[in-house]
Amino acid sequence: MGALLGLREQGMNREVELIKSLTQGLPRRQDTILGVGDDCAIVKAGPEQEWLLKTDAMAEGVHFLRDDPAVMVGRKAISRLLSDVAAMGGEPGSVLVTIGVPKDLDPAWLDGFYEGLRDVAKHHELAIVGGETIQTPGPFFCSLAMTGHVQPGKAILRSGARVRDAIFVTGDLGGSIAGKHLNFEPRIRESRWLVKQFEIHAMIDLSDGLAGDLRHLCEASEVGAELWTSFIPISRSAKQRAQSGESPLPALAAALSDGEDFELLFTVDPSEAVRLKDAWKEAFPETPLSCIGRIMEQPRLMLRDDQGLRPLTLDGYDHFNAS
Amino acid sequence: MGALLGLREQGMNREVELIKSLTQGLPRRQDTILGVGDDCAIVKAGPEQEWLLKTDAMAEGVHFLRDDPAVMVGRKAISRLLSDVAAMGGEPGSVLVTIGVPKDLDPAWLDGFYEGLRDVAKHHELAIVGGETIQTPGPFFCSLAMTGHVQPGKAILRSGARVRDAIFVTGDLGGSIAGKHLNFEPRIRESRWLVKQFEIHAMIDLSDGLAGDLRHLCEASEVGAELWTSFIPISRSAKQRAQSGESPLPALAAALSDGEDFELLFTVDPSEAVRLKDAWKEAFPETPLSCIGRIMEQPRLMLRDDQGLRPLTLDGYDHFNAS
Repeated sequence: MGALLGLREQGMNREVELIKSLTQGLPRRQDTILGVGDDCAIVKAGPEQEWLLKTDAMAEGVHFLRDDPAVMVGRKAISRLLSDVAAMGGEPGSVLVTIGVPKDLDPAWLDGFYEGLRDVAKHHELAIVGGETIQTPGPFFCSLAMTGHVQPGKAILRSGARVRDAIFVTGDLGGSIAGKHLNFEPRIRESRWLVKQFEIHAMIDLSDGLAGDLRHLCEASEVGAELWTSFIPISRSAKQRAQSGESPLPALAAALSDGEDFELLFTVDPSEAVRLKDAWKEAFPETPLSCIGRIMEQPRLMLRDDQGLRPLTLDGYDHFNAS
Repeated sequence: MGALLGLREQGMNREVELIKSLTQGLPRRQDTILGVGDDCAIVKAGPEQEWLLKTDAMAEGVHFLRDDPAVMVGRKAISRLLSDVAAMGGEPGSVLVTIGVPKDLDPAWLDGFYEGLRDVAKHHELAIVGGETIQTPGPFFCSLAMTGHVQPGKAILRSGARVRDAIFVTGDLGGSIAGKHLNFEPRIRESRWLVKQFEIHAMIDLSDGLAGDLRHLCEASEVGAELWTSFIPISRSAKQRAQSGESPLPALAAALSDGEDFELLFTVDPSEAVRLKDAWKEAFPETPLSCIGRIMEQPRLMLRDDQGLRPLTLDGYDHFNAS
């Protein structure tokens, strides 16, 4: 999921329905702790470790264009997975890289793609341990699989949010398509810090957009949420794109619905909120952290602004616009 | 690798060179026991376990055709990986399934594909723990990643063959394209039995063809090999295709060079050869096991037949034909 181009126009719902029907009743094992449905799967690996498993794919013409710098595409491919491991509070481990190569692809492009993979892997102390190269009659695609590690029982799931929790989000949101989607820093360090210092109840990374991913988190936790519009951190590019008319969306709507922010959305007990804000500012002075709302009992998403409370019936952009 | 259609015509060498150049100097970690270059990677997972990691991909029009039954394509996708785990002497664990879906793909085809995945997973007690579905402007592709388990130090590598070892192969070889490539039983049970009962020195699964994969094994072990033509188990379909003219290859050449046999090729100390043959016949009465040659010191592949010894300068089919 999280395709920047294409999928949204077709309606994310069709994809979600398809995946739901395909992934029903998949076989499990005794060592399967968590299967499909969160940012990563969790599998038991001995008495002292659980492994996170995650796969992610990108296709030319959908997630990037041939003109995009190959190094950045490689960086994005591996960083997307790191963002998922971060969302589980995990430490990244090993990567497998599968690529489908069309006949007319310039080998220099592939070199660049691998350079991007290597850069990010080295930076985050990941190993690239395997891969598969096949010929494809279609456009270039890549499909990566990543392992990560957590202590037993310590993975942060989407399903742990509790009523009255404070909802936090890292970074600024919206307008990722202007560049950030190809050049973002996955929040691995921040996630490692968060799970060591605080009891994080639930976490997800923002790939489908704030409203969509908050809905995923709330559905998994069987709760609702109230967002406070004035606290939602809107990115400069979302504002610029709205002002210039480059985007048809008002900046706030972009921050709520644009995909591929790759920030962390998480919840903590409200009594922790102030201590968290203060400690964060010291640890990551250059990265914003915003408390944007709270978890509610009623299973629906609400938006609070000057005019009061209104339902956030997001289901992708169209529904939002119509609300 | 191991594409049945397409790649061979283009020359396997180009693919091998590309992969070699891309996978040079990939980052490793302390827990990386074995990176790129064998049937699976090996990663440390606590004191009592090592994990195998493997990824594999197939694209419509290269590895299968849209007309192929979806269930069989799904079975093949997952069985290919099981064959790799078997080649390491491992026990399969969990699978991640990534698919690229073209707009015009019939959802019923996808259901069938998943049915095939589920069938094989259940049969081999595998868990399907995650996946990713993306849209693609190209043909359907799938990319699977599998974990497997071995006891520390017990994985069977390609690199363990010793001079004078007996070379064994399971099943019958050649002519897989006539049907077996879509309907084979990965040799998981046989591999588990072999590693428990015997000291297997080196093992590989046959995806690129006997001669090609034996060469991989010999290169990794820095040895050579001598094959005895009269002991090479030629499949009925290789014979039929040669007789009918459906294949331009003599049956022996097909058994040596056809891809996608998905049988196991392994070596043991020659003193074990007879005991192995006898025990195998009792354990797997319906599956042939053939001793087809021996490991030699000189790093080259030789073929012994009625006329004596001649070099097996295989590099795909063309070179063989010319030899």
